[in-house]
Amino acid sequence: MDREVIVLNEERNVTLTSYIQPVGGKFDNISKRPAIIVIPGGAYQYCSDREAEPVAFAYLKAGYNVFILRYSVGVHATWPNPLSDYEQAMELIRSRADEWNIYKDKIAVIGFSAGGHLAASAATMSKNRPNAAILGYAVTLEYLAKICEHTAPDLVSAVDKDTCPCFLFSTRTDRTVPIENTTKFISALVEHNIAFESHIYSFGPHGFSIGDSSVLKQDVEISNRAKNWVSDSIEWLKEVFGDFGDGDLTKPKYRPRLVDDGEEYLSADCTIGYLMKNQDARNILLPFMKNTMEAIEDIRKWEKVDKSIIESFVSKTTLRNLSGMAGVADEIVEDLDKQLRQIKNQDL
Amino acid sequence: MDREVIVLNEERNVTLTSYIQPVGGKFDNISKRPAIIVIPGGAYQYCSDREAEPVAFAYLKAGYNVFILRYSVGVHATWPNPLSDYEQAMELIRSRADEWNIYKDKIAVIGFSAGGHLAASAATMSKNRPNAAILGYAVTLEYLAKICEHTAPDLVSAVDKDTCPCFLFSTRTDRTVPIENTTKFISALVEHNIAFESHIYSFGPHGFSIGDSSVLKQDVEISNRAKNWVSDSIEWLKEVFGDFGDGDLTKPKYRPRLVDDGEEYLSADCTIGYLMKNQDARNILLPFMKNTMEAIEDIRKWEKVDKSIIESFVSKTTLRNLSGMAGVADEIVEDLDKQLRQIKNQDL
Amino acid sequence: MDREVIVLNEERNVTLTSYIQPVGGKFDNISKRPAIIVIPGGAYQYCSDREAEPVAFAYLKAGYNVFILRYSVGVHATWPNPLSDYEQAMELIRSRADEWNIYKDKIAVIGFSAGGHLAASAATMSKNRPNAAILGYAVTLEYLAKICEHTAPDLVSAVDKDTCPCFLFSTRTDRTVPIENTTKFISALVEHNIAFESHIYSFGPHGFSIGDSSVLKQDVEISNRAKNWVSDSIEWLKEVFGDFGDGDLTKPKYRPRLVDDGEEYLSADCTIGYLMKNQDARNILLPFMKNTMEAIEDIRKWEKVDKSIIESFVSKTTLRNLSGMAGVADEIVEDLDKQLRQIKNQDL
Amino acid sequence: MDREVIVLNEERNVTLTSYIQPVGGKFDNISKRPAIIVIPGGAYQYCSDREAEPVAFAYLKAGYNVFILRYSVGVHATWPNPLSDYEQAMELIRSRADEWNIYKDKIAVIGFSAGGHLAASAATMSKNRPNAAILGYAVTLEYLAKICEHTAPDLVSAVDKDTCPCFLFSTRTDRTVPIENTTKFISALVEHNIAFESHIYSFGPHGFSIGDSSVLKQDVEISNRAKNWVSDSIEWLKEVFGDFGDGDLTKPKYRPRLVDDGEEYLSADCTIGYLMKNQDARNILLPFMKNTMEAIEDIRKWEKVDKSIIESFVSKTTLRNLSGMAGVADEIVEDLDKQLRQIKNQDL
Repeated sequence: MDREVIVLNEERNVTLTSYIQPVGGKFDNISKRPAIIVIPGGAYQYCSDREAEPVAFAYLKAGYNVFILRYSVGVHATWPNPLSDYEQAMELIRSRADEWNIYKDKIAVIGFSAGGHLAASAATMSKNRPNAAILGYAVTLEYLAKICEHTAPDLVSAVDKDTCPCFLFSTRTDRTVPIENTTKFISALVEHNIAFESHIYSFGPHGFSIGDSSVLKQDVEISNRAKNWVSDSIEWLKEVFGDFGDGDLTKPKYRPRLVDDGEEYLSADCTIGYLMKNQDARNILLPFMKNTMEAIEDIRKWEKVDKSIIESFVSKTTLRNLSGMAGVADEIVEDLDKQLRQIKNQDL
Repeated sequence: MDREVIVLNEERNVTLTSYIQPVGGKFDNISKRPAIIVIPGGAYQYCSDREAEPVAFAYLKAGYNVFILRYSVGVHATWPNPLSDYEQAMELIRSRADEWNIYKDKIAVIGFSAGGHLAASAATMSKNRPNAAILGYAVTLEYLAKICEHTAPDLVSAVDKDTCPCFLFSTRTDRTVPIENTTKFISALVEHNIAFESHIYSFGPHGFSIGDSSVLKQDVEISNRAKNWVSDSIEWLKEVFGDFGDGDLTKPKYRPRLVDDGEEYLSADCTIGYLMKNQDARNILLPFMKNTMEAIEDIRKWEKVDKSIIESFVSKTTLRNLSGMAGVADEIVEDLDKQLRQIKNQDL
Repeated sequence: MDREVIVLNEERNVTLTSYIQPVGGKFDNISKRPAIIVIPGGAYQYCSDREAEPVAFAYLKAGYNVFILRYSVGVHATWPNPLSDYEQAMELIRSRADEWNIYKDKIAVIGFSAGGHLAASAATMSKNRPNAAILGYAVTLEYLAKICEHTAPDLVSAVDKDTCPCFLFSTRTDRTVPIENTTKFISALVEHNIAFESHIYSFGPHGFSIGDSSVLKQDVEISNRAKNWVSDSIEWLKEVFGDFGDGDLTKPKYRPRLVDDGEEYLSADCTIGYLMKNQDARNILLPFMKNTMEAIEDIRKWEKVDKSIIESFVSKTTLRNLSGMAGVADEIVEDLDKQLRQIKNQDL
Repeated sequence: MDREVIVLNEERNVTLTSYIQPVGGKFDNISKRPAIIVIPGGAYQYCSDREAEPVAFAYLKAGYNVFILRYSVGVHATWPNPLSDYEQAMELIRSRADEWNIYKDKIAVIGFSAGGHLAASAATMSKNRPNAAILGYAVTLEYLAKICEHTAPDLVSAVDKDTCPCFLFSTRTDRTVPIENTTKFISALVEHNIAFESHIYSFGPHGFSIGDSSVLKQDVEISNRAKNWVSDSIEWLKEVFGDFGDGDLTKPKYRPRLVDDGEEYLSADCTIGYLMKNQDARNILLPFMKNTMEAIEDIRKWEKVDKSIIESFVSKTTLRNLSGMAGVADEIVEDLDKQLRQIKNQDL
């Protein structure tokens, strides 16, 4: 492993510490590695060592190249300085990806508390988006961001369709960063159809980092599950990025989007409601829908359910799912899908 | 173990199957047991065996007495029939608690899908509230409840201050019960200051039950973390109820409430905003607050932060937490707490 | 689940309690189930409830059909009564396997302490051998067996070539059944080339059963790893028996034998020493061996190693492994293997 | 973390790479750290990178200071060169322990394959013994040691009363280092009353290191439990060394010795057989033994058991355990213990 401290901004005391592992040789199952940028917390006043190297070690063991970003804090924390630090770091890593044997499109960020605010900023509003984000008891709400650094932005409202897959964890009893910072961000991810996983543990203090005895006092009251996020997040990254295989990474385990309403072409994975707004799609679907709805209503005996509820339900369901409920043959769905994929999505 | 099928309602085909374990003898660390009522899913059309005994075995191994409730479904599912079935079951269990060596106040419910809807109904709107609720990919939103059974109520709006601690799990890609059913219920719990834990796994199908090979086909696409809810929920119940000890259960691991704004008497665990609305509390706090706020503002250099943000922040923070941030001595806080505890909460 | 107490021997108070789970329907991934016979401990004086149903629940959850065997104890424990009880139980289960939807050749035993002695007897000396055996802090040494029941046999010397795969666990500080009972049995398994897995945990008392709070007092001093045998043994059984798949079980994960010296025909998986004792095999191998040994000696620069050590090493190595060390092409090994497989093993 | 490559022997290319973590500051629960020396394998021909840093990262995350020892291999591997390298490394670490904030008496070794041979040499025959040893699929038998390096010694016969607590793991199907290397070493530990924990996994290849996808090809056939040794060994070290607490480490979790026959003074934790050989102890025990034996024989109805078996059993049992079986009051045992502790052990 090569470790190097790269100064990104001398005046603001911003550094990127790289931990680069070898490939090939005794690691002949690995030709390139994914990477992760660790962003420690500290209320935008400092960068906590407890959320730096202990975190790095976990991902190093998992085979990642790791970078610790010590960003602008204290008097230098005026926005967008910290975000600019991130942009500079990600640009640097991607520009040196070949030299460091890093997959350019498999670079995650992980941030804690205020560092989680910065990691979530990277995920939602940066030019150089990360490919996955792990957010630990992250600040996301405007009032709390501003209590840390008065120029820092709200992030719940920043979630957009290009936000990367996110993994969130926190403890419900966090008295420093109230749990709404997690739950409201999750709601925004849901609304924007962004892939995520989340773990809200029953109790534990703010700032528990990796939750091991190596970073916590013995008498700290914390759920014994709170430390599971470490191995869980590593497994999650394997799903999002793929796992080490035989030279190259294996295929990722799932498609991030649940519905394809935002894709360039329509498909059977768009919602009925979305498809029906397009005249071409409507023409294709109408004869099919009639039979399908009859089939469904017949199965479920929905005669007593308010029509508007059924319509709302159908409207939010994808063509593929509705067909599944109605027992429509796969061939028919594939045929509709093929027709729909020739229609450009006019909303984009 | 004694297993018995108790008919609760012959006409509606409602049964409660009891699995009662012995105490004493070779189980001399146990004099009574906590219990759990398992409520299988099935869209209010049937009760799924896959969400019945496999679940029961997990809690039996953990030392619980278990009951499986097969409630009113199909033509009998008109509301409030299923909830009445639950009420009848819980009344029966509590009335026979001595005979069965069950702690009357340590009885949980666990429900899946539509059974999760019923378990969440028990948690939020029943007369005989359970002491904890585990909700697996539960239906909670009105439109979806009504799609299952047109008379079933919305549950997000039903969360109240007496809702029991909840443990929620689901997969984000559930195409039958969309993830909003979990996230919106969580938001309601947060709003009402109810203790909870939640795990939303990255991907997996609806109805995965305990997530073992014993209930899933080999090629089902599901995150390898999705089955962790079983052992996690058992550990969580140990926190909420206490663990088997030396005859009696040990002390629960945490206080469910984060703030005590709803308690009978005021205290240092109420929020500043709540305390300030009470004239007596206000008189006690004002001299203290002045010093504390100066201390805090001095520490955090908040001169640039908008006053309204700080006020909002302080207003939502408990007296105990604010004192911690300001470095106020414990004795002073204890003294204030003692004074506040003599003031009755006029809002109740 | 159907639970039934079957009386095997009224006079000796021997019973077999069956816990039979359904197949098909909502368990449509399962057409038949593997099974396990639980044999509680109790020094051949009684059958401990703590090692009966809590164990059964774990395997029931994993999808097994379970039987608890309460065998001859106290005045009835004279050998071979307990073993006869086992034989009777296994015969009964196999004879009713179709009715109970059980795989006849996927029936394990699990025994604890003296029950472990009986389970190990089943594994090594019964007529109706089980297909896998899990031995928990089992008595295997003659002196200790006789201290429990003066007619009970030594089991270390009973291990034979037909002994089934074994999974052993115990704590090194067990003061009732000293750890030699585990280690000497393992050595006998090694000597007879029998598949096994073993976990000896650092410390813990005798009789800890599933190691959960549901069976242990709070202040018991025991390693936090000691309870891992439960899930580990379930995973191990999946390797030995295969896992639930799509109707039928999947293929087992590994071949139990390391070397095939005892098989009906010779092969490349026999040791060189064994092959060389057969004149036909010798003729096939000699030209090959000369080149191979030269290749190996060249690679490893063994000129200084005592010839007898190399000969002993080669003699104990299989043809396939030696070829691997010498970098022999796979085709050549496959060709030798094909020739050897036509030679009958004359030792049998 | 400070990383430094320290040259121990330039001619033989021996280095010690140190990874030293900070104490105090944000690690205010830590004033000093335990340490571990990682010794990679490679048949005494090279040092495998796959068993170096990936292992180091695991213990770094757990809070340890870590050293990787690259010892004499190939032409330099003539014994005792590798052991001398170890001695030099351990001397250096202990001499700089204050500077590096390391507990002098909490320094473990971990070795793999041939590196496991060197780690086991350190544990059994070095001048500067480690305080714990983790042995991964280690070579311990003479013939195999000599196949690697013809001057390397047998280690099974080297186990002595000063051997440190050991944690062993391997896979039963290891075709390079046969499982006897593990089982025979364990037997020697048992014979010498040395504390240990061991995990022999059902199947997997030689050299699987930490068993993660970061060091293994995707299609490697290995039990899914084989990687558990990493976290298990960390938990085991917490038992042996104590865990991070509030500045200092907590108390170790167990006493390594089962019986105190080798201690300076006699006690109730010596075996009856050992005590009876000492005339003073004999005088104290005889009146007590008579009653106790009668009590035991009465309880267990041992009239039919061969006298010599009972005598052998009693002889190997400690006074404390025998008293427990006979139901002797604790006060009586404590009184005997006090008397025995005044008798010097004449065998030492």
